[in-house]
Amino acid sequence: MKIDSVDFFYLSMPVVTEAADGSQDALLVRVTSGGHQGWGECEAAPLPSIAAFVTPMSHGACRPVSASVLGERLDGPNDITRMSATVAYNSMDLLQAAHTWSGVETAMWDLLGRQRGVPAYTLLGYANAYPKLPYASVLFGATPEETRTRAAKIGRAGFRAAKFGWAPFGESLANDVLHIEAAREGLGREGVLLIDAGQIFGEDVEAAALRLEAMERNRVTFFEEPFHGSAYGAYRALGARAGTVKTAGGEAAHNRFMAEHLMEYGGVGYIQIDCGRIGGIGPAKQVADAAARRGVTYVNHTFTSNLALAASLQPYAGLADHRICEYPTNLQSLARDLTLNHIEPDANGEIVVPEAAGLGIEINPDAVTRYKVDVEIRVKGKTIFSTPSI
Amino acid sequence: MKIDSVDFFYLSMPVVTEAADGSQDALLVRVTSGGHQGWGECEAAPLPSIAAFVTPMSHGACRPVSASVLGERLDGPNDITRMSATVAYNSMDLLQAAHTWSGVETAMWDLLGRQRGVPAYTLLGYANAYPKLPYASVLFGATPEETRTRAAKIGRAGFRAAKFGWAPFGESLANDVLHIEAAREGLGREGVLLIDAGQIFGEDVEAAALRLEAMERNRVTFFEEPFHGSAYGAYRALGARAGTVKTAGGEAAHNRFMAEHLMEYGGVGYIQIDCGRIGGIGPAKQVADAAARRGVTYVNHTFTSNLALAASLQPYAGLADHRICEYPTNLQSLARDLTLNHIEPDANGEIVVPEAAGLGIEINPDAVTRYKVDVEIRVKGKTIFSTPSI
Repeated sequence: MKIDSVDFFYLSMPVVTEAADGSQDALLVRVTSGGHQGWGECEAAPLPSIAAFVTPMSHGACRPVSASVLGERLDGPNDITRMSATVAYNSMDLLQAAHTWSGVETAMWDLLGRQRGVPAYTLLGYANAYPKLPYASVLFGATPEETRTRAAKIGRAGFRAAKFGWAPFGESLANDVLHIEAAREGLGREGVLLIDAGQIFGEDVEAAALRLEAMERNRVTFFEEPFHGSAYGAYRALGARAGTVKTAGGEAAHNRFMAEHLMEYGGVGYIQIDCGRIGGIGPAKQVADAAARRGVTYVNHTFTSNLALAASLQPYAGLADHRICEYPTNLQSLARDLTLNHIEPDANGEIVVPEAAGLGIEINPDAVTRYKVDVEIRVKGKTIFSTPSI
Repeated sequence: MKIDSVDFFYLSMPVVTEAADGSQDALLVRVTSGGHQGWGECEAAPLPSIAAFVTPMSHGACRPVSASVLGERLDGPNDITRMSATVAYNSMDLLQAAHTWSGVETAMWDLLGRQRGVPAYTLLGYANAYPKLPYASVLFGATPEETRTRAAKIGRAGFRAAKFGWAPFGESLANDVLHIEAAREGLGREGVLLIDAGQIFGEDVEAAALRLEAMERNRVTFFEEPFHGSAYGAYRALGARAGTVKTAGGEAAHNRFMAEHLMEYGGVGYIQIDCGRIGGIGPAKQVADAAARRGVTYVNHTFTSNLALAASLQPYAGLADHRICEYPTNLQSLARDLTLNHIEPDANGEIVVPEAAGLGIEINPDAVTRYKVDVEIRVKGKTIFSTPSI
């Protein structure tokens, strides 16, 4: 099959706020080849990612992503791997290319799975998909009371694990301790409790370390992104000072090297990969393999739709011991409405990657129409992008 | 002063080819504040970098670069540092933001220097600017004969150092050896000879190591980017096998951490920083300081205009022992015409950063008009970017 077209749909809520809520917009990608379709999602910033696909070439090592994709052969997983290498080389100097390619690459796995009538994870070499324990991923409340209420609600909804993140965490030690305690109290004694600092401590190991005592006492499983994603030295120093709490990070990795470095040099206990950033499902699977070899636990990073969630589960679907998975709750209506089917926790509080072909998720064309943001890019008087029809 | 406006000018040659020649287009940035102007340049891919400035916000950690810049105070170097941190945090999930911010940040140093009537390097804390030994940076010839002719011409032009790069290097060992020998022969016994592999060996240490013998024999000073910019392990392994030849890399670093990692984990002997990618002059200076502490040699990476060259010299202008500098030759007319003045080697074959205020380079408005590419970006029916007037 040849790749006939790649279409981008920029979707957005009518109002986007400064909350750290990644479900407020989305960049959906549709790839068509040989009469088949596949869907993927790029994380984040739709407009620059569209621009990276359609931009005029700057020079031989700074070509648009489209140059390595359109008209190429797509007959099997090896073709996806080949195109990944071509994009990395030909778009070497185009920074945003990794995010753009991530959605396109994901859509290709969906397409190949649909064409062959198999779930995408089988194309990665996994015989089975094991159930995962989803953690409800939410923001901290504005007050400890709000955090407690939120945690209790998560527990009542059947979740056995929860992650609390971002502001107001990091503003004061005393308040952070109250939030951690409130989260544990609300979630109950047995729940898996996770904390996401949203890089608030920069490189300040001492500031982050001050939170360890309360985390250990409240049996926090991991302490996510205390630092800038590239501050490996800080991650390693904090990890060395922690007892039972492990560090976690990796969501910003835009190639597999960055994720491997965070394990090797940063010494994280959990490596969190966003398929919409790292270059798609293929490099994420390589990271999962590397994590398993190192004794690091692989976790998905997902804060958008169930299409992104389904994609993010594929790379470690077959790794039984890598149990927890990020499961965004409180999604904006856009991210909920975008797919006709959803991945829901079962009576056990567990989820499993869909068994249907490809990523197993059906796009809702009405939602695409409803949330679509019209974009037009003109260069030298010629339209090089305009939002396509669904 | 408040930042009143930031304007982007996408410039391009009429025809852009697949040659690895970064001077075929440019993204020029003009910052105005308090009645003063400053100029900078982003590397590379103009359209995605413009999009990263004007894009609608996706969420609180994925804001456009403009949100951290427009209307902000710019009274001194600390304000630039503060905005760097704000951009890194508020545009955390917007990958292209680093390239966009790089040009804006550079323009702010130019502006502050002009306002105070001092060269930008003095604002970085350097009392003096030391002369640098420019290496003519050119592509290999298609044949060894062409490479020899090119090297001889460089020598005749007064250069005492030259770098040859990219295809056909890496295609065959025998041919690579011929090219290395031809370059040495053409340049003469005394010239500083440098080789740039353009990442052609991926992670293949063995393939790169096969070239070492010819390099040592021909007294090559550094072997640049044999591998993917993030393949630290490969850099370290090759460095350990080399004798007098040092490895070099770092041009793709889009934050100071990445450059520091290449020194710490990759063990490079030369760290090459592009101010148009790493976030501007400020973080480049931090890398220069770190390099000096480690005994690594700092080198600029520049393949575009003399504005970019002047910017790239500032971070290590005051480091007398860091002697060589990349000096693009065979520039396309765009990159040559863009500035009214140029940095030329003196009778000694040395260059020095301009002593005039700011970056010391004057933009040629006629060239901006001549090479300008009209861009219009419309979102939800509203124009969010159109090419401004010079």
